[in-house]
Amino acid sequence: MTMEKIPYRPVRDELAYTFGGRMPVAHVRAGDLLEVFTEDCFGGLVRGPADLPSQVCRMPYLNPVSGPFFVEGAEPGDTLAIHLASITPARDWGVSSTFPHFGALTSTSHTATLQPALEERVWVYGVDRRAGTVSFHATETDHAVEMPLDPMIGTIGVAPGGFEARSSIVPDSHGGNLDTPQLRAGATLYLGVNVHGAMLALGDGHARQGEGEACGVGVEIATTTTLAVEVIKGVPTAWPRVETDTSIMSVGCARPLEDAYRIAHHDLVGWVESLTGLKTLDAYQLVSQAGRAPIGNVCDPNYTVLATVDKALLPPPEPAYGGVHGRLRQLAAGLG
Amino acid sequence: MTMEKIPYRPVRDELAYTFGGRMPVAHVRAGDLLEVFTEDCFGGLVRGPADLPSQVCRMPYLNPVSGPFFVEGAEPGDTLAIHLASITPARDWGVSSTFPHFGALTSTSHTATLQPALEERVWVYGVDRRAGTVSFHATETDHAVEMPLDPMIGTIGVAPGGFEARSSIVPDSHGGNLDTPQLRAGATLYLGVNVHGAMLALGDGHARQGEGEACGVGVEIATTTTLAVEVIKGVPTAWPRVETDTSIMSVGCARPLEDAYRIAHHDLVGWVESLTGLKTLDAYQLVSQAGRAPIGNVCDPNYTVLATVDKALLPPPEPAYGGVHGRLRQLAAGLG
Amino acid sequence: MTMEKIPYRPVRDELAYTFGGRMPVAHVRAGDLLEVFTEDCFGGLVRGPADLPSQVCRMPYLNPVSGPFFVEGAEPGDTLAIHLASITPARDWGVSSTFPHFGALTSTSHTATLQPALEERVWVYGVDRRAGTVSFHATETDHAVEMPLDPMIGTIGVAPGGFEARSSIVPDSHGGNLDTPQLRAGATLYLGVNVHGAMLALGDGHARQGEGEACGVGVEIATTTTLAVEVIKGVPTAWPRVETDTSIMSVGCARPLEDAYRIAHHDLVGWVESLTGLKTLDAYQLVSQAGRAPIGNVCDPNYTVLATVDKALLPPPEPAYGGVHGRLRQLAAGLG
Amino acid sequence: MTMEKIPYRPVRDELAYTFGGRMPVAHVRAGDLLEVFTEDCFGGLVRGPADLPSQVCRMPYLNPVSGPFFVEGAEPGDTLAIHLASITPARDWGVSSTFPHFGALTSTSHTATLQPALEERVWVYGVDRRAGTVSFHATETDHAVEMPLDPMIGTIGVAPGGFEARSSIVPDSHGGNLDTPQLRAGATLYLGVNVHGAMLALGDGHARQGEGEACGVGVEIATTTTLAVEVIKGVPTAWPRVETDTSIMSVGCARPLEDAYRIAHHDLVGWVESLTGLKTLDAYQLVSQAGRAPIGNVCDPNYTVLATVDKALLPPPEPAYGGVHGRLRQLAAGLG
Repeated sequence: MTMEKIPYRPVRDELAYTFGGRMPVAHVRAGDLLEVFTEDCFGGLVRGPADLPSQVCRMPYLNPVSGPFFVEGAEPGDTLAIHLASITPARDWGVSSTFPHFGALTSTSHTATLQPALEERVWVYGVDRRAGTVSFHATETDHAVEMPLDPMIGTIGVAPGGFEARSSIVPDSHGGNLDTPQLRAGATLYLGVNVHGAMLALGDGHARQGEGEACGVGVEIATTTTLAVEVIKGVPTAWPRVETDTSIMSVGCARPLEDAYRIAHHDLVGWVESLTGLKTLDAYQLVSQAGRAPIGNVCDPNYTVLATVDKALLPPPEPAYGGVHGRLRQLAAGLG
Repeated sequence: MTMEKIPYRPVRDELAYTFGGRMPVAHVRAGDLLEVFTEDCFGGLVRGPADLPSQVCRMPYLNPVSGPFFVEGAEPGDTLAIHLASITPARDWGVSSTFPHFGALTSTSHTATLQPALEERVWVYGVDRRAGTVSFHATETDHAVEMPLDPMIGTIGVAPGGFEARSSIVPDSHGGNLDTPQLRAGATLYLGVNVHGAMLALGDGHARQGEGEACGVGVEIATTTTLAVEVIKGVPTAWPRVETDTSIMSVGCARPLEDAYRIAHHDLVGWVESLTGLKTLDAYQLVSQAGRAPIGNVCDPNYTVLATVDKALLPPPEPAYGGVHGRLRQLAAGLG
Repeated sequence: MTMEKIPYRPVRDELAYTFGGRMPVAHVRAGDLLEVFTEDCFGGLVRGPADLPSQVCRMPYLNPVSGPFFVEGAEPGDTLAIHLASITPARDWGVSSTFPHFGALTSTSHTATLQPALEERVWVYGVDRRAGTVSFHATETDHAVEMPLDPMIGTIGVAPGGFEARSSIVPDSHGGNLDTPQLRAGATLYLGVNVHGAMLALGDGHARQGEGEACGVGVEIATTTTLAVEVIKGVPTAWPRVETDTSIMSVGCARPLEDAYRIAHHDLVGWVESLTGLKTLDAYQLVSQAGRAPIGNVCDPNYTVLATVDKALLPPPEPAYGGVHGRLRQLAAGLG
Repeated sequence: MTMEKIPYRPVRDELAYTFGGRMPVAHVRAGDLLEVFTEDCFGGLVRGPADLPSQVCRMPYLNPVSGPFFVEGAEPGDTLAIHLASITPARDWGVSSTFPHFGALTSTSHTATLQPALEERVWVYGVDRRAGTVSFHATETDHAVEMPLDPMIGTIGVAPGGFEARSSIVPDSHGGNLDTPQLRAGATLYLGVNVHGAMLALGDGHARQGEGEACGVGVEIATTTTLAVEVIKGVPTAWPRVETDTSIMSVGCARPLEDAYRIAHHDLVGWVESLTGLKTLDAYQLVSQAGRAPIGNVCDPNYTVLATVDKALLPPPEPAYGGVHGRLRQLAAGLG
């Protein structure tokens, strides 16, 4: 198979703000390598301390995604495998902010209180691809810190089912604003297909992000993201799953946070069961001792928790989804 | 200073089931090295598949702790630093189980449903100190897995304030059943002192535990745990904190799980502020990008989440609590 | 003004399963009296004990709504007032059921556990309009109980903003599946308008319902519901509000349940402030002592709690939304 | 039987701040009528706008209870029935307040945020027993409102089990700070006995309280409360239950709020089952349509929700707990 490299760079009017309810911007096939420019969550409009998000951005034009891409052959009941081959910061800076009534350590529209809102403020970070660093500069003192660059895609998903269209701010079973650092280059994401063509879209790159995205905003960047897709026919996937060379992960999206944990672990127990032949309670027991539970976000409309286990701590599992992760990884590597 | 090594091995009747409301079993001083035998969470009564916890154990005689130890010089308003010098499995086996109406993937006394309870079952693990492994054996198939031994103390705390006595099952601001893998050898735990003598107690060792302790039970072991203490006078500590050579961590205990996350991150932001000189919003921003949020338990009466940041990702911090972690670590190493 | 009575009875293919994303079925104006047939939440397909919902219904064809109706003159930023003039059961029976993984006393897709699902079962109720009763018959014994008939509309809303389309199962700021007994005849519902024409739809009648709809399903009925609308220009409404002759109510939709409580009370405090001239903390204090907090549902994707206060317990309030409730009530009464 | 009227008025040093961990102040028997003076939640120290609770009160000396009373014949495994014969305000005023980091519409020690705290403020209410009114006076404007006097006991409970002692601020299965308006005169409260003598205590009267106690504080009053007790031997009670002439209620205490709802409804379903002979799913169905779910508090360490159903909407139930409510009600009436 010859892989075709398809570049896609949206103009501003092409950006999408929902999963579902949109016409596709392009068609892709298994074997294509899609190279997508993604704008940052502020649409590139926050560039300095004076650009307060609440002033330069206008709801609902936040967290734009590039797409949707119509995936040939994807039908409801299938699974779409999306391998993130590379995520490259598109600029030499990123931004973060506090945001009125958004974030884990402030009252919000839903955890509503009568207190004054937290101050809205912008932080500008340096992003140095060569050095592999992200530079934090304090705003009130002259402290500075270098952190490792660890690019990730915050928002990636397909159209939801049930004739729904969901804001790109929302993470749920269709993917969306998962906001987990686990979606870095080298990972393969599995999403259940709900509509003809799947309608894949992505955006919201982060140069890095702490677990939970406490302040509500990562180090937001535009990216050039390269990905390859494959459709696993006739295999449904209820909740997003992630595979890397060393581990498998299930993603739960819900409030309260313990329900996100429950969804992810319930799904992972079933996945381990099916890959290893362990019976349910044995799989539950093994995941309970061997698993980790990295938190994605604790700020979005649904919170995100992952349940993950190292393949090396499982009875030798059969390849997930027929070995698609390995296949796409090799393909992508060949073109890298 | 000459360190005195104080061994303590409780007889069955000396085991405690609360923090608070008990007379001390021994007195310790800064400079002492306390070597404590801790029984497992089942009081050692679950030794095989036939020993169902609900039959061999009797409420409230679960999760025994060894202690309390009266710490000389500890007064309300002080902080007790407890360095875990070593945690050694006391037997060559551990046990785990499912438990009726306990655990993250079952209904419970509080998340009450009308469904049948999950089956109660016991798993026996091999614990090989020399090889550094924990051996899982499936109960319904013949699968087996070796996992790294990673001993931790599940329950450690002081007497709570406000004249309370709390079950050893409960994690809260006084410590208690925190159930986090971060409490391994090499860590220093900081707890606010609420009563004269602090009244330190510990137990509930795990050979290892997944994040969240999904099934409600780790790989439960008896241990010999060696620890050293110091009292930081006049410095209060609101929520448990942990320090290792490389990181600082704040512990939140609450339901729902997001409140445990909030408590931990709120505390860590304040701690980072005080150690680095960053102002509040700058510290919030830095923790949001640099922090991790390992989940402790999602099964106990309060859930546990930690907020942690690597010291290397902070503006050079001053030593926490006057450098007590380094001091106790060296002392313990000298005697090791 | 002459009121026009507009009857609307959808054929099966006209039923809608989302708010948003649909073309209007009819246009209505202030002054019209709309008489809508609403199917029950099962599309009328569950008629006896053998009609298990999971077998006779097919996702996402659950909880159909009649509409949407395009309301002339309604623009984003306006408020739509909907007066429920009458809700008449359309048949002499209703049904309820338990449902696999749905309801407050069972694990669900989100509060996911490994236990067996609760049994799915159907209850058929007699509905006697003349006697004003709903008859419960036990399925396993021969007990029977008469309860007062108290018809309500479970699902009523407008298209959401942000280009979203939401399942009719979901309650949120656009209304939707609020599932509160407070939406009985005589009440006026206020909803913020998000799209041109508002796009009002309704369905899911209940002959009666307990607070919280514990089993996930009310006494489900088809209805003929008569309503009148008015557009309040230039006045936004963030969360659904309800007015009766004697009280005002704010509706919060969220998980966990306390956030629904917070939203509702935060909104009611602001509403009381604006109607009475009380300052914020005084309004908070008064609502804290005088208010009630009836729970709507504890089973839907968002839970619903109302905050309500009797007008008689407030400093004499000015008429809400310019007195539209009284106006529509009189109009409807005149045509009754 | 001749009823003995036992008056008890604690001096300040006798007030208790926990359930459990205290010696009894008096012994009572079935047939006694106990007349208890209860101090308000501030220990009577907040008497005007200048008496800010955080300044005049000192933790943990908040929410004092009178007692504990040793109930003759009460043993673990029994149920204590407590009939509230009368609750009389002891003064002609009451107070309420906002409180730093306490209440439903503010961040708290657990829902921790970085925002400034809500302002602390005191409201003084007039309490007119003869007129049956509670008078609200705004602090920033000259508005005033009369509300019906509806006296209740906020905190009543027994010693918890498991060797615990719990702060009087906490509601849980032992009762405690339930903060529900349903505990007014005429109600009988059932509590499971955990220790020899039960150790009953009570306090925290409210002249009235909104559902949820949104601001964290009711209209706090000292009371003279008259009650009668009876021990139901050999009948355990897992969660608090309340009976009135017309209804039965189960009380759930937990976070998040939906777990309080679940506990209460799970318990009520079982109670209805045992009183009526309905089978579980039938009882679940009936409670789902006939029940109400009044919220108690959404501010205390555990939130409180009640599940209640009118006796008239049940298949004729047998008298609860052998008819003790009727017996105590008559006895109390005879002495009234």
